[in-house]
Parts: sequence; structure tokens; C-alpha cells
Amino acid sequence: MEGYTIADYLLDRLSELGVRHLFGVPGDFTLGFLDHVEAHEGIEWVGCANELNAGYAADGYARMHGLGALSTTFGVGELSAVNAVAGSYAEHVPVVHVVGAPTTAVQSAGRATHHTLGDGDFGHFARMAAEVTATQAVLTATDAASQIDRALVEVRDRRLPGYLMLPADVAETPAAPPTAPLEPHPPVTDPAALQAFRAALVERMSKAERIAVLADILVHRLDCEPHLHRLLDTGVPHATLLWGRRVVDESALGYLGSYLGEASDPEVRDGIESADLLVMSGVQFTDLTSGFFSQRIDPERTVEIRGEATRIGGTSYQPLAMGDALDAVTEAVVAAADSLRLAGADSGPFAGSTTDAATAAGGADTVVVAERAPAASDALGQEQLWHEVAASIRTGDVVLCDVGTAYYGMANHRLPHGVTFVGQPLWAAIGFTLPALLGAALARPDLRPVLLIGDGAAQLTIAELGTLLRHRIPAIVVVVDNDGYTIERVIHGPTAAYNDIAQWDWTALVSAFGRSIPAVGVRAETVGELRDALESARTRDGLTLVQAVVPRDDVPPTLDALGKVAAAANRRTE
Amino acid sequence: MEGYTIADYLLDRLSELGVRHLFGVPGDFTLGFLDHVEAHEGIEWVGCANELNAGYAADGYARMHGLGALSTTFGVGELSAVNAVAGSYAEHVPVVHVVGAPTTAVQSAGRATHHTLGDGDFGHFARMAAEVTATQAVLTATDAASQIDRALVEVRDRRLPGYLMLPADVAETPAAPPTAPLEPHPPVTDPAALQAFRAALVERMSKAERIAVLADILVHRLDCEPHLHRLLDTGVPHATLLWGRRVVDESALGYLGSYLGEASDPEVRDGIESADLLVMSGVQFTDLTSGFFSQRIDPERTVEIRGEATRIGGTSYQPLAMGDALDAVTEAVVAAADSLRLAGADSGPFAGSTTDAATAAGGADTVVVAERAPAASDALGQEQLWHEVAASIRTGDVVLCDVGTAYYGMANHRLPHGVTFVGQPLWAAIGFTLPALLGAALARPDLRPVLLIGDGAAQLTIAELGTLLRHRIPAIVVVVDNDGYTIERVIHGPTAAYNDIAQWDWTALVSAFGRSIPAVGVRAETVGELRDALESARTRDGLTLVQAVVPRDDVPPTLDALGKVAAAANRRTE
Repeated sequence: MEGYTIADYLLDRLSELGVRHLFGVPGDFTLGFLDHVEAHEGIEWVGCANELNAGYAADGYARMHGLGALSTTFGVGELSAVNAVAGSYAEHVPVVHVVGAPTTAVQSAGRATHHTLGDGDFGHFARMAAEVTATQAVLTATDAASQIDRALVEVRDRRLPGYLMLPADVAETPAAPPTAPLEPHPPVTDPAALQAFRAALVERMSKAERIAVLADILVHRLDCEPHLHRLLDTGVPHATLLWGRRVVDESALGYLGSYLGEASDPEVRDGIESADLLVMSGVQFTDLTSGFFSQRIDPERTVEIRGEATRIGGTSYQPLAMGDALDAVTEAVVAAADSLRLAGADSGPFAGSTTDAATAAGGADTVVVAERAPAASDALGQEQLWHEVAASIRTGDVVLCDVGTAYYGMANHRLPHGVTFVGQPLWAAIGFTLPALLGAALARPDLRPVLLIGDGAAQLTIAELGTLLRHRIPAIVVVVDNDGYTIERVIHGPTAAYNDIAQWDWTALVSAFGRSIPAVGVRAETVGELRDALESARTRDGLTLVQAVVPRDDVPPTLDALGKVAAAANRRTE
Repeated sequence: MEGYTIADYLLDRLSELGVRHLFGVPGDFTLGFLDHVEAHEGIEWVGCANELNAGYAADGYARMHGLGALSTTFGVGELSAVNAVAGSYAEHVPVVHVVGAPTTAVQSAGRATHHTLGDGDFGHFARMAAEVTATQAVLTATDAASQIDRALVEVRDRRLPGYLMLPADVAETPAAPPTAPLEPHPPVTDPAALQAFRAALVERMSKAERIAVLADILVHRLDCEPHLHRLLDTGVPHATLLWGRRVVDESALGYLGSYLGEASDPEVRDGIESADLLVMSGVQFTDLTSGFFSQRIDPERTVEIRGEATRIGGTSYQPLAMGDALDAVTEAVVAAADSLRLAGADSGPFAGSTTDAATAAGGADTVVVAERAPAASDALGQEQLWHEVAASIRTGDVVLCDVGTAYYGMANHRLPHGVTFVGQPLWAAIGFTLPALLGAALARPDLRPVLLIGDGAAQLTIAELGTLLRHRIPAIVVVVDNDGYTIERVIHGPTAAYNDIAQWDWTALVSAFGRSIPAVGVRAETVGELRDALESARTRDGLTLVQAVVPRDDVPPTLDALGKVAAAANRRTE
């Protein structure tokens, strides 16, 4: 093909992996590449205010759409984004970071080029990237295509970020288009391992009366939600860690609640820890999702399903794909259904409700809210705030909770059927969700994005509000205005000045960042004002930002409990 | 001392090095340390909107005050700041990055702790930091004090950033206060080397008629400005690279202008390249400051003075401190004054004018502006904009020019006596100057900070406007509003959508980011509106933001020339 270059090849491969949007900030080493992006029919350029935000947006996109991509320039650009890329690594999010670099000739000359340290070493930043990406390639004119294929397959299959350095001249090097699709992931499961696993399961299941499932985020990352949902449709009682909220339908009959070790509701804790047989699928305990490793799980009574291996008690079965393992558990549960305590196994409405959390019919479109709904004239506090926010969530929403008051304030509120929950509790970078919403919204324009974020967190990444407005994303953004970092106040220094922040007029930011773009900023100090704001936001095409004013020292109970444990961890010396 | 800990020790050492402000964002692994900061009499905490900005602020502080410091939390915090730290490395700015880390016990346990990758490896980020810092220390309870001393001395003496990881428990470990000051920098100069250098100089000087001095940023970084100024006071013709504008008084008689290789004014180029003897002091040619290495300097006719070595032609004299070498040159020039062409050597007003650019009497308080001053009713273009801005600069200003239109738009405008120029042309991270101004202003409250920045650049770091307002910094901020990245448009893609940005109402940001803080945002589309805005800004205590609207495709001539060379460099394949 005339004029086809390595840049086109890379874009075609990204497109093949489902990438329709490329996030980033232009730089002079990337501009040639960006011409190819503009010309590409399948990929749209999404310029962001800065590179960290672009990295967060690409991550949010990948969380909703399988794989994300990010373009930055050498040095200044890539290092500004590296925190986002590290977050993608921690949270198992496949993002391809394409870094436009000086030409091969400039690099060979080794002179003091802008965006370098001036020491002639052009390898510093690729070495840094190697610490936080699963695969790296410095592309060259001679083997770029095979390097691209190798790296992208690894990103796809390991569900971790990858780093591609693309020198400006390499991007423009003529190339041949791909002649075949990328190699598919080879089959994982060994039939003998599966057979042995099945036999062991039947034996265990026959002795069990109380069975439970604990699922977590890796079920989503490994595309195994349909398998999990088939299992949950049997009516088996189940819970998730807070990290894995999105993998289940929280309105389902068998759903117990969120499991957080010692910080769990007693019923959830009992349901999980006292089961005769606990099936754990895709679970990774982290400090913030396990009440600082306070889970009490007896390995002898546990079936642990991981990416490519499964274990019952002390016996491993591998290689065994998560989907196959889950299907085997479903078969065993169905076969033993009469002797197991299953929730509503024979009742109509439950069956099928979790098959596809985003689209299936059935399930509850809103959650049942507590009877003691606050009065409209009540002043807002954290309790009233999250009660009202939870009550306003609807099927078809994607709810992004920034780690902090929003994440833990929403922890005890069940989400209705067909809602996607996004959070980042392991990397736990405050401010992440605002740009992540940009990515999520572009990935899934059919869903209504709802962002719940504290004021301290929103200050880190606020400039991307301008990009949300520019793309006319109909987001509902709730900023908790309490003059500081509440999560830090809970852990240490409740009255210390270092936990205070600059006081902004959040509602005024909407018109400042979106010159002549229809959007609304509303300040809410009472339950009624918040209720009205959230309700009218749904009737609007444009973005609504709600500045929810709560008392400075008010804290959601789950966060309070967790903060005390975190503070103890920071004091612990052995 | 009762309750004295390693945190206090570190703060006392920073204080000893002149640090009075610590920039950063709190995180749960830093909160204990921040209690010690709050309690420290000599150091004030300056909370920033995000970590990248805090890093830029610490860098701006160090550029005005010798040494800066930054506090962030592990992982998410430090990686968000790493681009700023790398910039400090590239630009020889001593900044100490203190990273609050999980306790030693938590690190030893190796579990999936928040702000880690979840893989149990707590060393990823320190290894990344090692690529962009000159010295690193992971502090332990047993040898923290000696590690701190070693690292701080290295930061101080090498004028490069350092990385200190401070686990939360180590910060709280009891310690003894310092018993003696940090070791002074050992003397550099070998008297024999100095004597040989002097002899060679006298010999060279006797044969020279035209002598010139080319100075650059390292003169400032090595604290050798007084030595340089004594040399320039002889009336020797001189120039600087754009990087080194601050080291001279641009209103001095001997000042030729900025030297940019091929992109220089012909007179400057001739004065430097045709000198019989060229004294270069602290010069590092970078692509953007040398017209992409188009300097024509004959090594045989050059005296090159570096940090600890000096060269005349092919002969090195070392170890020889820059200050001693400059003094030797001054002596030789004075001795040979009768045979050298010196500017105004015997005229009164010139002598002494450059002795201390910031404080000395004499010199010009405003620059002589071109006779063809634009009319008040003229529409603003890049030419009118920079003409008016340059004419408004006063003695006692610190002028921060973001790399891009501001940096190159101001390249050909001389600054009056007693003005400090700050830019970042090697690392060249757009957006740097806005948070850097925060640091510069807190370091030198006696100076008026003036920020010149493009709209695309300002979007990267705009949140720090809130901190400028919170601290009531009386800055004059000129944002060039032309809907995009002009420097990128010059290099490539003048009409490409990827060089456009979200359209903001810049004047409205002032009240949005500074709830109830007196400050003004003004929009200027004509010369008269700009002139009025700049003039009235000087009568005000609070911040003034001027949104200067210029045509989208207008470009300062120096930037245009440079952009074409940059584009060629990106195309060059060998």
C-alpha cells in the first residue's frame, strides 16, 4: 500500500484490539504519528489537558472496553503519565503507552536534546517504564512489526500495560499492512486437570451444606463474568471484595454484600467465613479491601480459582482456565442443588438476573432505600449524601467512586441491576476517577457516567473537566466539598493544616472550563437541594456538577473504621 | 532532646541548607512526618493541588533560593512528581524529594499494600528515581542521620536532585540533633593549575584584539555570578544562551544579545563567533538554545570554563573552580585592557552596573522600546503582545517564560536591569512555569512575579492557580489565548485538530479558583487593553490574570525559525 508506514501498522493493530480512541497530549516527537491517527478511520484522537489525565482516561477506557491506548512525547510527556501507567499495572488494566521519541539519528548523536536529561542517555525513561509495565519495545525500522505484535499480544493476554517507544523516523518508515490477525491466546486448560478438578469438586460438594462464592476484580479482567454469572444464577450465596463490585449484580437475591474482612457486615462475614465450601474466583486481598488483611479464610474449605490454576485445599489443578473452572463449579452446584442452601433457587425472578449485569432484563432497577429517608430540609452530612446518591443511581449508569469518602461512603449501599462500578482501591491514586470518566464515557456512550469524588481529590485532576465539557459528556459529577483530604484526616491529623486545601468555587468552574458549552453547576447544602440537583441532572443532555457541602469533620462509618486500621498499620513496627 | 526524631533531624538539615518552604501533597504514609513539619519553626508546609505541580514549585523555589524540597507519598505521589524531578536533573536544580513510605514492617511483609503494584516489591519506585536523581537513600532507623547528611551534601554540591525514602516508622524513630554543620564543599582549585592557567591566559590575551564572553546557566547554578559580573564590568562584549539570560544584566553596555547559533542576530553571532578569544563560562549547548547545534565556535580560540575544569584550546587546567578561573580572566582582561576592544571601559555609567543584577544601583530600570510602538487601538498579535509585555517589565520583577511562544516571543526583547529570568529550555516541559512561579514567589517575596504562558501550556498545570490565590501571590499572569499548542503547530500540523485544545474562559478561572480572594481576570484583544491591564496590575496587591487573545496562526519570528529546524530534525534520518 502506497504511503503505509509503521505508524499505520501500529494503529491497525490497536484498532484490531478494539481501540477506537487514543488519549494523549501532542509533542513534537509525536506529531508525525498523530497525522496517521487523524487519517485513521477507526481511531479518534482525544487530546487531554495533561498526560497524567490522559493516562487515567486511557485506563478508564480500558476498564470499559477491553484495552486502552495513550500517546505522549518523550521524557516530559511519558514521565507525566507514568503514575497512571503504574496504576494500570497494579489494577490489571491493559493500556498501551506509545511514546514518540527523537529520531534514531538524534538518539545516536547523543547530544543535549530537549526533553532529555542532557547526558546523552536516551534509555533512562524506557528503563523506568520497565518497572511498571509488563512488556516494552523500543521500535526500530527493521523489526517494528514483529515487536508491535509481540508487545500487543502480551498486553492483551496478561491484562497489564505495555510500553512502545516509537522514534519519529521509525513511525514514518514504510511497512506492509498485517496479513493475518494477531495470534489468539492459546487454549489454557489441560483436559486431565479439568477432569481431576471436577471429580474433586463432586466429592467436596457432596459433603457441603453451606456453600458461598467470593468473587473479585480478576473475574472481570479475565473476561470471565459470563461464567461467574452462570454460577451465581444457581442462587449460590455470594459476596465480592470492594474492588470487585462490578462483577456481580448487587440486587440479586443471592448477593450477601461486600466482604471486607473484619470491617464486613456480620452477616456477610458469616456467610463467607463460615461456609463449608467457599469458592473464591479472581480474588486478590489488598490492605484496603480486606480490612488490612483481616480476612479469615480456611484454605482447607476453599476452592480458589485463579487465572490459570485452581486449588482445592492443598491440591492444585493446572493449567486450568478460570472460565472452565467456574463452569465446572456451576455443574457441581446444579448437581448437588438439593442438598445445598441456595437463595431462591426455584423462584422465577432470580434466575437469569445476573447473566449480564449491564443488559439483561430482570433485576432491580433501583435499590431499596432505607426506610428512614432523610427529610428534604435536613442539612447534608456524609450519611445523607451517600444515601441520596445511592438512591439516585439507575440501571445503565457507570458509577466511578474516587478512593476516599466516595468509595467508602458508597461501600454499604447496594447498586441496582445493570450498573457498572469503577474504583481503584489498590493503586488508590486520588483524583484518578475524573479523567477515567472521560475514557469510560467515550468507551460506552450508551451509559450515563456518574462521578463521586472529594474536593481534595478533584483538585489533582480538575483540568480534565474541560475535556469532559468539550466532548459534551453528559456526566453527573458530585464533588464533596469539605475543605480537605478527609481520608487523610481520618488516618492522621484531623485538624492539621496540611490536610486543608485551597477553597474553590466548584460550580463556577463549569462555565470557566466550558466556554459557551451548556452545562450546569449546582451547590447543595440540604438533602432537598441535592435530591433536586441529582434528579434534574437526569433530564439534561449536558454535564451537571453538584458541589455537595458537608461538615468538615464528618466521615462515612466504613472509612472511619478503615482509617483507624490504616493509622495503626503506619504505627506498627513489627 | 525529648521527642526528637529522624523527621526532625531531616528538617533541621534542610533548614540549615536554607529551605524555608516544603512543597507537596499529603498522603497517609507522610502524615506523621508532616506533623514534624508543622511543628518546625523554620519550615512552612505549602500544600499543592497535585504532586507534579508541587515538584515544579520546589524547582522554582530552588532556582531562586539555592535548594528546594518536596514531600510526596509512596507510589502514586512520587510517580506523579517524577517528571518535575527529572526536569530538575536536566536543568541542574537541587531539589530534595522526600517520599513517605509504608513502615519497614509493612514492606518486609511484602503484601498487596495500597500505592504499590501489589507484587510485594517495594523497590520499583526507588529504582525509577535512580534514573533521574543524582543520589538516593532508603532511610533506615540505624543509619538515617548519616544517610541524610551524605545525600544532602551531594544535592548541594552537585546541584542535582536527590531522593530520600522515609518509611513512616523511621520518621518517628528517636534521634539526636546534628552536633555540627554539614561538611562544607572542599576547596576545588589546585594552585598549580591556577598558575598555569593564568600564564596561558596572559599569553593568549596579548595576541587578542577582539575578546568576548559567552555565559550560560551553569554560572548561576555554581553560584559564580559575582565572579562573572566582575569580568563583565570590564566592558568585555558578551552574550548568553537563552538558558542563561538571568546571569547577565541585559541593559549593560557590553551586552550583545542572545546567542542562538544560526538563529542569532547577525551582530551577536559575529561578536561571539569572530572573537579572537572567546571565554565561555558554564555553557551547555542544547538543541533549542543553539539553533539545533548550529553554533560555530572554534575550540582553538576558546577558553572554556566549566564546573571544576578549564580548557584553553586543547589544554586542560584542573581542578580549577569556575570562580577562580573567572577571576583570573578578569585580571588578565584588566591587564590587557588597552589593547582590547571593550565597551565603555572608561565611561562612568557602565562600570559596576552588572555587579549584582538584582540589587546594584545603576543600569536601566526599563528597556528602551522600539520607536514604532503599536497604537492602542491595534489588534493584538504576537509581535504587539511581546513588545508591550517587554515594555512593562520593571526592575525587581522575576519573569517566568514558559517554553513556547512566551519563551521565544521574549527572546529578542532585552530585560531591564535587576530582572530575574526563569525558563526551562532543556527539559522544556510545557506548563512548568505556573507552579514554578509559586515556588519562586515564596522564595523571593520581595520580587514581583510575572508569568508568560500559552493557553495549551497553562492547561497542564492550571490547578496551581488556586494555590497562588490562596497564598495571595501578587503575580501578573499573561495567558496567550490562541486555542492551542502554537509551538507544535510551528513544528508540524498547523491546522491539525490534535494541536487544538479545549476553550476555557481564562478570566473566569480567577474567581472560581480563588473563592472570595481579591484578584482580577482581564481579557485583552487590543494593544490598549493589554497596556491598561499590565499597568493596573502593578497598582494592585492581588493577582492579575490577563487573557491576551491573539490570532490562532500568528507566531513569534524566533519560534518560527526554530520550529522549522526542529521539524527538520524530526525528519532527518542520519
